[in-house]
Amino acid sequence: MATAAAEVDAGATTMSRYRVEPHLFVILGGTGDLTRRKLLPAMRRLASLDVLGDRRALLAVARDTEFDDDGFRGWAKGALEAAGMSEDEVRRLDEARLYYQPMPTGEADDYEALANRIQEIEGAHDLPQNRAFYLALPPRTFSSAIEGLASAGLNESAGWTRLVVEKPFGRDLESARELNREIHRHFTEDQVYRIDHYLGKETVQNLLVFRFANPIFESLWNRDRIESVQITVAEDIGIESRAGYYDQSGALRDMVQNHVAQLVALVGMEVPATFRADAVRYEKIKLLGAVAPISIEDVVFGQYARGTAGGEAVPGYLEEDGVDPESNTETFVALELALDTWRWQGVPFYVRTGKRLPRRLTQIAVTFQAPPVCLFESMGVCQTNPNVLYLTLQPDEGFALNVDVKVPGEPFELSTLPLDFFYKQVFGAIPDAYQTLLLDVLTGDQTLFVHADEAEASWELFGPLLEAERRVHLYRAGAWGPDAADELLAKRGHAWLEPVEHPDRSI
Amino acid sequence: MATAAAEVDAGATTMSRYRVEPHLFVILGGTGDLTRRKLLPAMRRLASLDVLGDRRALLAVARDTEFDDDGFRGWAKGALEAAGMSEDEVRRLDEARLYYQPMPTGEADDYEALANRIQEIEGAHDLPQNRAFYLALPPRTFSSAIEGLASAGLNESAGWTRLVVEKPFGRDLESARELNREIHRHFTEDQVYRIDHYLGKETVQNLLVFRFANPIFESLWNRDRIESVQITVAEDIGIESRAGYYDQSGALRDMVQNHVAQLVALVGMEVPATFRADAVRYEKIKLLGAVAPISIEDVVFGQYARGTAGGEAVPGYLEEDGVDPESNTETFVALELALDTWRWQGVPFYVRTGKRLPRRLTQIAVTFQAPPVCLFESMGVCQTNPNVLYLTLQPDEGFALNVDVKVPGEPFELSTLPLDFFYKQVFGAIPDAYQTLLLDVLTGDQTLFVHADEAEASWELFGPLLEAERRVHLYRAGAWGPDAADELLAKRGHAWLEPVEHPDRSI
Repeated sequence: MATAAAEVDAGATTMSRYRVEPHLFVILGGTGDLTRRKLLPAMRRLASLDVLGDRRALLAVARDTEFDDDGFRGWAKGALEAAGMSEDEVRRLDEARLYYQPMPTGEADDYEALANRIQEIEGAHDLPQNRAFYLALPPRTFSSAIEGLASAGLNESAGWTRLVVEKPFGRDLESARELNREIHRHFTEDQVYRIDHYLGKETVQNLLVFRFANPIFESLWNRDRIESVQITVAEDIGIESRAGYYDQSGALRDMVQNHVAQLVALVGMEVPATFRADAVRYEKIKLLGAVAPISIEDVVFGQYARGTAGGEAVPGYLEEDGVDPESNTETFVALELALDTWRWQGVPFYVRTGKRLPRRLTQIAVTFQAPPVCLFESMGVCQTNPNVLYLTLQPDEGFALNVDVKVPGEPFELSTLPLDFFYKQVFGAIPDAYQTLLLDVLTGDQTLFVHADEAEASWELFGPLLEAERRVHLYRAGAWGPDAADELLAKRGHAWLEPVEHPDRSI
Repeated sequence: MATAAAEVDAGATTMSRYRVEPHLFVILGGTGDLTRRKLLPAMRRLASLDVLGDRRALLAVARDTEFDDDGFRGWAKGALEAAGMSEDEVRRLDEARLYYQPMPTGEADDYEALANRIQEIEGAHDLPQNRAFYLALPPRTFSSAIEGLASAGLNESAGWTRLVVEKPFGRDLESARELNREIHRHFTEDQVYRIDHYLGKETVQNLLVFRFANPIFESLWNRDRIESVQITVAEDIGIESRAGYYDQSGALRDMVQNHVAQLVALVGMEVPATFRADAVRYEKIKLLGAVAPISIEDVVFGQYARGTAGGEAVPGYLEEDGVDPESNTETFVALELALDTWRWQGVPFYVRTGKRLPRRLTQIAVTFQAPPVCLFESMGVCQTNPNVLYLTLQPDEGFALNVDVKVPGEPFELSTLPLDFFYKQVFGAIPDAYQTLLLDVLTGDQTLFVHADEAEASWELFGPLLEAERRVHLYRAGAWGPDAADELLAKRGHAWLEPVEHPDRSI
């Protein structure tokens, strides 16, 4: 096993072991923002890493009938340039594998034409009907796209057929269930890849490896040793140009139901039987199902008022362009979860997420129990801090374990310091989330994708809070949410931990 | 509690809280090497830190009758200069507090004269008969010095009287017992400070604080979680000019009986009731008493042959000046200890120490148990390393906890990396061992000093190995001892761990 950065190469050469079968990658919404910014650059990088193989093609589908293969090829080059790829990289784009298919109405005829075009391309490239359909579409059109694909028989093939569904996955339990029913009418669950790039594959795997490759932590990971768990998913930005979407959604839908639920599941789940997709997803579903119904008493909603961000004055949420000036939408949520499992009974999981917080940070803080006795009392020191393990996912991925050490010299004094490790410092850049997720789609690894039952379990848990009568507390932009969020923890004698600052020790 | 280096100042100001009572510090052997190199500079630094108070004096005692107070004062200045102290620091030496008393014969008369001189100085400085006698003498004269002090009634006073005894403390169980009997004839154990500067006060306290201020480690610190413990006390130097001493002693007396025994006790001891001297020393005695008698089968003796040190060719031990060319003295010892306690039953403690090893290093490696199942087998990775906690005492004090993390990218691969912390990086220089130990003598804190029973327990354990028939294996200077040391661990399927290299991240 390697122990040094020297042997590591962010996957550049090692990825070549992951050969993908011959396939056609179809993007519905193939000229949209996601395609341009994420999907095309990620596919290009995978091609450069020589993992996609020689027999492959990419077909972009969109409404525009004026557009054609050549138009799309030029547009794709522009996309790679805009993504900051080198000239050389852009030149290596194999245009002959890129196609464009117009879909003016989205009716059955269009899908028939799509099916014909697919057969034609597969013939030209000698492809065995392995197909991935990526729905890079607005959520409201998911359903008709699924119907359309099925109507043209594109839900199955002689090879494999996979369906990639972007978040958000429903806007409440009912709509998520309806969407799952729709999908399952035509696709089996093992064909479905519900993508949530927020937790990149690396991040999730790092978290699971940290828990399960290090038995000392696994042996401490329970109610006997842990006092509480805090999860912070903080953004420093406001809603930017997304008022239309955000004012209808709010933090609970935008962050809690999906990302935060995933983090809770990853921290709280039991050891899976294997590291395979079905085993890992089963444990996550089980954990989410074991969370006690959340009392509205244990939830704090917040909305940012005027304040500062990055030293500049910024408007309040209600003053943002496109926001209903009387909006009651929450831009902040803090809540306490109780996990009714043998492992976690009595250990509160505190969660907070919001916009216009002091900085961008996704961090899990696991607070272990404090020493049971005051051993150093004779030295005039009674207070020893509990050990805290910080798992930071963004922006600077790493681990820090706070320990108490003695300050050199007299008198006897303790100081809390981190034993720490940061990925960047050792490994340099971490691959883009889409790059690894697309590779998983093409190799058929569902581990990092959200299972239907997982999505429903999460909505079942958080959905009722959408309906409940709520009070929304204002907080100044640039603060860690409203005071009520502090009071939530104070009820049990706890407090939000100061997020760990990562010392700048990058290579 | 402080969390940052900013609040820390290697004791410069904080020490002033530790006021020492008015006292007279008497050094027997007051013009020797130890006084010049260590004791005078340490006392000067303590005075600068303003912890010694205004009512104090220092009296050096030695054979030379030509010498006097003035001579000693000049000599003391020279000692501070030679110790690298600044001109300013040397100038601040308060010469009027320094005295010299000749002791030409070491007979009772001399001690009477010493007693009179002490009373005279105490009168001049208005001192309340608080006295520390530091025996900076060759071990063979300990006994007569103790007798002499007692004959003049200097073993007690109206204030406190303390006796500081330098190591080595006996050369086997019998001589240690005899020395203890001698001491206890005239002094009570709570007057006696057996000094062993090798483990400086900081080092020992750091180790104890790490264990007992961090409950996560205390909860892992037992046979259920730990597979084995390794202790390495390595020197890169040879015997230098100490052949006369060393060839009569060997590594077992020079290192194992004292330093290594202390390390074993500090790692293995139970949680003391308090952090007070008696409680800590009681636990150490208890632990040493619980070590099973050592079978000679579990011991490897080594002696260095020619080899290299620091890239230069160096002679073998038998070629060193002053060494008996047929000497069978060991310069290396490796052994396995079995601790018969509820906490440690079945967990081997492996120890190795020697001269002319690849580098200077005192390190404890605690290997935790490996994961019980091979969770990542489906990813093509079975081997996960056990977690290892490295506690480094010299030269770069710090802690490192090895954890397995995922290497970013594909394919799935694990890498072992340290979560680490180093004192120097955070706190800068650590106070000299003598500085803190002398302050303990003057404030009456025996925690870091060796109790009579501790010394005897250690001799009881290691003494028999001195008598046993032994085979001494040669090893090349610059190697980690003889092959037999590896075979010792291989019997149980273990191996010496590669000592941790500390990354250079100093401030």
